[in-house]
Amino acid sequence: MTGILFIVAAPSGAGKTSLVAALLQRDPKLRLSVSYTTRPPREGEVDGRHYHFVDRATFQAMLERGEFLESAEVYGNCYGTSQRWVSEQLASGTDVLLEIDCQGAAQVRRLMPEAVGIFVLPPSLKVLRERLERRGTEQPEAIARRLAAAQGEMRRVSEFDYVIINDQFDEALEDLTSVVRAERLKVARQMERHGRLIESLTK
Amino acid sequence: MTGILFIVAAPSGAGKTSLVAALLQRDPKLRLSVSYTTRPPREGEVDGRHYHFVDRATFQAMLERGEFLESAEVYGNCYGTSQRWVSEQLASGTDVLLEIDCQGAAQVRRLMPEAVGIFVLPPSLKVLRERLERRGTEQPEAIARRLAAAQGEMRRVSEFDYVIINDQFDEALEDLTSVVRAERLKVARQMERHGRLIESLTK
Repeated sequence: MTGILFIVAAPSGAGKTSLVAALLQRDPKLRLSVSYTTRPPREGEVDGRHYHFVDRATFQAMLERGEFLESAEVYGNCYGTSQRWVSEQLASGTDVLLEIDCQGAAQVRRLMPEAVGIFVLPPSLKVLRERLERRGTEQPEAIARRLAAAQGEMRRVSEFDYVIINDQFDEALEDLTSVVRAERLKVARQMERHGRLIESLTK
Repeated sequence: MTGILFIVAAPSGAGKTSLVAALLQRDPKLRLSVSYTTRPPREGEVDGRHYHFVDRATFQAMLERGEFLESAEVYGNCYGTSQRWVSEQLASGTDVLLEIDCQGAAQVRRLMPEAVGIFVLPPSLKVLRERLERRGTEQPEAIARRLAAAQGEMRRVSEFDYVIINDQFDEALEDLTSVVRAERLKVARQMERHGRLIESLTK
């Protein structure tokens, strides 16, 4: 049985990364795709776990060989998702989660329209700004730039299947967990997964 | 904002009634439609809570006035769902749950195709038979008849949106809860519900 491909997208500051980390902790059957990036590692980031860190020449060569399911350049850094890894996981029945931006999400949907798109929104623009400021790693201009980019991203909300408002973390996590669980209960999937049971019940 | 109409159907013995009761306990925003029936009350059943108990003439008159969203005759007793009550609840933004059979579910979907159909299956034919026997209120012939009817019902599983296997009660309840929660997070619904927030985030 083929796995389900989940896409979780959000503007930076919506709290996507913490939500996804908590979801993965809860759900051992779900695997996160680790992106390739040309961005240098931040403190604490582990190669192969947070990202596959590669140089620009390597990234460019992968891009030219068509190895990315989606890729994007953001603030001068390149990011990409390995198509082969995702396809192998899905083929082996593993559900995969992509934590990417809206641009990437649109690319994935074009190639894999059956992907389930989940968009995470902050509860207000004020909270979004505060979250960006609280990180403390960025200059005011960078924050303003990220805020403008976030607004652009959020205009694409209607391209997704589900929308989660990340106001209370625990509630948003419960939302995300429910979407994953419910998608696994869709009739086509269940008829594939429990085909023999259903046959034995109805014959 | 319009409420969501959930249909929960299952062959008798699948454990639907206990699941639905537990769901309603958990979720005060969800209201169960109370069916009209010509069947006499069983011990402990309360008029207006478990069913609206009416005589056959009353039922027939309601049927002729087109007051039922769905109706069925099962083992000589009539059952029907009030269209007006359901429509009023949905119009006021309340989510409604119908606990009905497959025949009724098909009637509802014809009138309200946006309804979310959930089908509950037993984990095996053996368990289904045991559950029917354990009730102890029925003769062997009645059990055989119910079992054959259940198999007929279960052949219609593909008409539903979600399938839940009621093997472990707690897991099945979690499944049911997740489907309801996830449906509330669908993009069209969220854009309606959080329109002002989304507008303020993207302008």
